[in-house]
Amino acid sequence: VPKLAAARVPNSGAVVAGVAKGVGMIEPDMATLLVYLVTDADVPVKAIHAPFRRVVERTFNSLSVDTDTSTSDTCILLASGVAGPVDPDDFEAALGAVALSLVHQLARDGEGATKLLTVTVTEARDAGQAKRVAKSIVNSPLVKTAVHGGDPNWGRVVMAVGKCSDDLDISPAAVKVAFGDFEVYPSLLDESGLAKVAEVMAAGDVAVNVSLGCGAATATVYGCDLSDGYIRINADYTT
Amino acid sequence: VPKLAAARVPNSGAVVAGVAKGVGMIEPDMATLLVYLVTDADVPVKAIHAPFRRVVERTFNSLSVDTDTSTSDTCILLASGVAGPVDPDDFEAALGAVALSLVHQLARDGEGATKLLTVTVTEARDAGQAKRVAKSIVNSPLVKTAVHGGDPNWGRVVMAVGKCSDDLDISPAAVKVAFGDFEVYPSLLDESGLAKVAEVMAAGDVAVNVSLGCGAATATVYGCDLSDGYIRINADYTT
Repeated sequence: VPKLAAARVPNSGAVVAGVAKGVGMIEPDMATLLVYLVTDADVPVKAIHAPFRRVVERTFNSLSVDTDTSTSDTCILLASGVAGPVDPDDFEAALGAVALSLVHQLARDGEGATKLLTVTVTEARDAGQAKRVAKSIVNSPLVKTAVHGGDPNWGRVVMAVGKCSDDLDISPAAVKVAFGDFEVYPSLLDESGLAKVAEVMAAGDVAVNVSLGCGAATATVYGCDLSDGYIRINADYTT
Repeated sequence: VPKLAAARVPNSGAVVAGVAKGVGMIEPDMATLLVYLVTDADVPVKAIHAPFRRVVERTFNSLSVDTDTSTSDTCILLASGVAGPVDPDDFEAALGAVALSLVHQLARDGEGATKLLTVTVTEARDAGQAKRVAKSIVNSPLVKTAVHGGDPNWGRVVMAVGKCSDDLDISPAAVKVAFGDFEVYPSLLDESGLAKVAEVMAAGDVAVNVSLGCGAATATVYGCDLSDGYIRINADYTT
């Protein structure tokens, strides 16, 4: 499926557009993910370098279809300048919107994927811990198969937090887990709450929100469920 | 499937026996893996602590069915002493043989598994690097699905080495990959070699051997293929 996105730079006539390719071997560490972003804004290389890296870090480098990193992941931004100069913050906002849209499209079109899985970790000690724990959850095959089966399995989410065993400042008593807006741990749901969570899990977009209760840092990462489609695509051919 | 193993302590009348349980949520970091080892040798706790940790490190802690770590992994050794004292090295050999046999049985009986996958990394800088790279290979879903499909996909093995991106001393030009005894990279196989490798990949035990060419350290880790059986077991129920 083609992945395309575009956004207007606020307060200007400039636009940012992007196209991306990739379905598997995707946990980029900027390298089989190819992304081309174009804009007509006049953005000097020096000025755009830092915002570009920030956007890539919180979008493409926060994406994992299958934990496997390609040797050819690429993200390139080309600017023609014909729309003239723009405010850097406005440009970063438009660039971020395009990149995020492409990441959503990439995750939904991941090999065998039937759902977009978004994992947000809040109240972490620092950004590194937040992203490490979020990646541990989004990459866990037990979490990914639970999402595929529509099972609100908070035990697997807590397991994926717990296996980040270097993060000894995470206290199990402080951790909270929600599927969408519904906390499922430590507070337990009644029958009507369970019915609502079942609806959350049956949707095409599933959000897992985890609070670590040990700081103020946050990270959001993107992935997909793990289905027999992934196995068939990757087991049934020879090279 | 029950997992049982026993070995005689060399040069003594003592035996070591073990029983283990567990099929998924298995990449122990000693926690759903339960292992009970028993012996009639007279082994004082002080003397057995270090060899026990060494054996656990190179057997149960070198096993990964699905990268997910349980909260209850347990390995216990009970000694009655009735067979009298034994040589510590002889005891460690017998303990190691029992533990390795249980690890092979655990990997072969992993959720959805149809094959035992053994990954050995040699010529690494140090033991930590050797184990990190070996775990990256044994845990890669693309390597695991290739093994399931019987595909000698050395490209996926090299990818799994490459994604250990903190190990900047690994030079792609120095890396060698073999399936069983057949080098598949960098030397390329002719038609008869390919037919032999196809046999290696079709067997119930598949060995992937990787030489990093940057040192003298070695590690061996144990896992299994990734099949649609794993998905069915873990997606098709609710908690």
